[in-house]
Amino acid sequence: MIKIIQSKTRCLILSSVLLISLWSCKQESSTSTTVEPKEVTETVMADPLPSWNEGDVKHSIIAYVEDVTDSTSANFIPVFDRIATFDNDGTLWSEQPMYFQLFFALSRIKAMSADHPEWKNKQPFKAVLENDMEALMAQGEKGLVTIIMTTHADTTTDEFEALVSEWIATAEHPIKKKKFKELVYQPMLELLDYLRANDFKTFIVSGGGIEFMRPWTEEVYNIPKDQVVGSSVQTEYDYNDGKPFIKRLAKLDLNDDKEGKPVGINRYIGRKPVFAAGNSDGDLQMLRWADANTFKTMKLYVHHTDSIREWAYDRTSHIGKFDKALDEANEKKWTIVSMKDDWNVIYPFEKK
Amino acid sequence: MIKIIQSKTRCLILSSVLLISLWSCKQESSTSTTVEPKEVTETVMADPLPSWNEGDVKHSIIAYVEDVTDSTSANFIPVFDRIATFDNDGTLWSEQPMYFQLFFALSRIKAMSADHPEWKNKQPFKAVLENDMEALMAQGEKGLVTIIMTTHADTTTDEFEALVSEWIATAEHPIKKKKFKELVYQPMLELLDYLRANDFKTFIVSGGGIEFMRPWTEEVYNIPKDQVVGSSVQTEYDYNDGKPFIKRLAKLDLNDDKEGKPVGINRYIGRKPVFAAGNSDGDLQMLRWADANTFKTMKLYVHHTDSIREWAYDRTSHIGKFDKALDEANEKKWTIVSMKDDWNVIYPFEKK
Repeated sequence: MIKIIQSKTRCLILSSVLLISLWSCKQESSTSTTVEPKEVTETVMADPLPSWNEGDVKHSIIAYVEDVTDSTSANFIPVFDRIATFDNDGTLWSEQPMYFQLFFALSRIKAMSADHPEWKNKQPFKAVLENDMEALMAQGEKGLVTIIMTTHADTTTDEFEALVSEWIATAEHPIKKKKFKELVYQPMLELLDYLRANDFKTFIVSGGGIEFMRPWTEEVYNIPKDQVVGSSVQTEYDYNDGKPFIKRLAKLDLNDDKEGKPVGINRYIGRKPVFAAGNSDGDLQMLRWADANTFKTMKLYVHHTDSIREWAYDRTSHIGKFDKALDEANEKKWTIVSMKDDWNVIYPFEKK
Repeated sequence: MIKIIQSKTRCLILSSVLLISLWSCKQESSTSTTVEPKEVTETVMADPLPSWNEGDVKHSIIAYVEDVTDSTSANFIPVFDRIATFDNDGTLWSEQPMYFQLFFALSRIKAMSADHPEWKNKQPFKAVLENDMEALMAQGEKGLVTIIMTTHADTTTDEFEALVSEWIATAEHPIKKKKFKELVYQPMLELLDYLRANDFKTFIVSGGGIEFMRPWTEEVYNIPKDQVVGSSVQTEYDYNDGKPFIKRLAKLDLNDDKEGKPVGINRYIGRKPVFAAGNSDGDLQMLRWADANTFKTMKLYVHHTDSIREWAYDRTSHIGKFDKALDEANEKKWTIVSMKDDWNVIYPFEKK
């Protein structure tokens, strides 16, 4: 049975998921592919950030990178210190109408329900099986934690990886009608490439589940599994009949959001970033952590201002709330990217 | 005050430290240096492992690397999967007459004693201050945990890094009369370089403290901080007067030894290694974890057989006990390196 976490900290990814609309997830046949790191082209491109419109934001990014990688500059940063950390939900891919990991969790509940006939009459499962989001939300945080822990624990790590891999290969976003993994931001892919071409090591630091992200970050972002930091459950090693395996337990390990982000960065990376990007109040502590670096740093906020091509939301949104951090970013003159004004393309499939 | 961990797991690095002789640590002036990743020479060397004697072990290492990096081989391993994990104590550097991290801890007790006059009459501190190892050992595991937690917690992460950096730059081994950081194994440095030249990503996975190792692994092993996995204490983020910092708490987080090694590998790396090297029973679970990989793997044990140039110990040693794992390595035909027979040089300073 599932033990619900009793932690004061909130559940893995769902600290403020409240606004949810109906959804559906198609499952198609899964294909397994071998991923290789993409080669970085050595030739200098005329424009390393073609999906970024000309303007202060694009120019400040390029000026920063050129300055800190110039060995004659007073702001030169040694390669080992060129750490760049990126939030995932809302910073590298979309997060509306709810965090994509929750779509995965709800899809899992449906798949698991065949073995749990009792769920038909038991909340919060009943609400999920009936696509009744209002009833699910009425279960409150406890209901969501139950959904997450039911779908994210009590498997081995190998089993969980296979489940995520199959889902990400096939599942579609209910509104955009694209695979979730296609809803990544083309300008941010270019930024990741540009930083790596300049010997920055790029990391994801997300409130999302670490083992939910790792199965696909190599293919989608060219970011290795070991450069993914996220929320985690506790695990346990076991060894039976000569076969070792690791079990995922229904107990929170790291809640990699807000104060948890610097803690996660310290745990996994061991040094402060020089470049940090986020989109919500949940990233503020990470950007402050970068700001405390003694090297010259860049703090970048993605502001969701495009109601046509993506979504527009900030101070009052239940997902990706950007309020206190928006004030601090303005006050401290951190870089704020307007998706509407600074990006000429949002998703890779829109490229001409 | 220090809270002693109440965990069932044993303390960070000291699971079986019992045999200790007298010691002294000189402190000299510290110099700060900027470390840059060493360039990998692109030209193919005639011999990538010159400090390894010709023989089955050396040949099997080279045959393995050539096989799994050959894109026409059935055993080809994609780059993202080329994960190599190395134990530290006894595998990359010496560990006698006691784990080097304990020398650091004892040195810290002496430095801190000026602010703790009461330690003169209080165990286990009294024993340390009087260089009375027998009395210290009589305090048992509880005494050692007190020593470790007193010296490894209740600082910020920045403060702790500075303490370790100063110590490693100056402290000398009492018997070898060399700096501790000079007592690394030249053949293993060559093996690390050789694997990296073939696109393996090299990690340390040690029972030693992660924040004890990170300040010097870049300079000594060319291994970035984020590729160091080790035992850890819990941490807490705080923010005062606009300054963020992370506090090290006197509570165990991960005990990265034995069963903790696969757990640490899963937490930090997210995939099973294809190459794993250790020297003691504490590494057995890590090597089994590598052995469970579906790719072709290499499991390598360093056997301390050289009583003249280093130390000779295995089945009955209190430090680096190599007994059950020696049987399993023999049974499963894993690679066993005899330091005496397979290495023509032990330490870098012996090179001609």
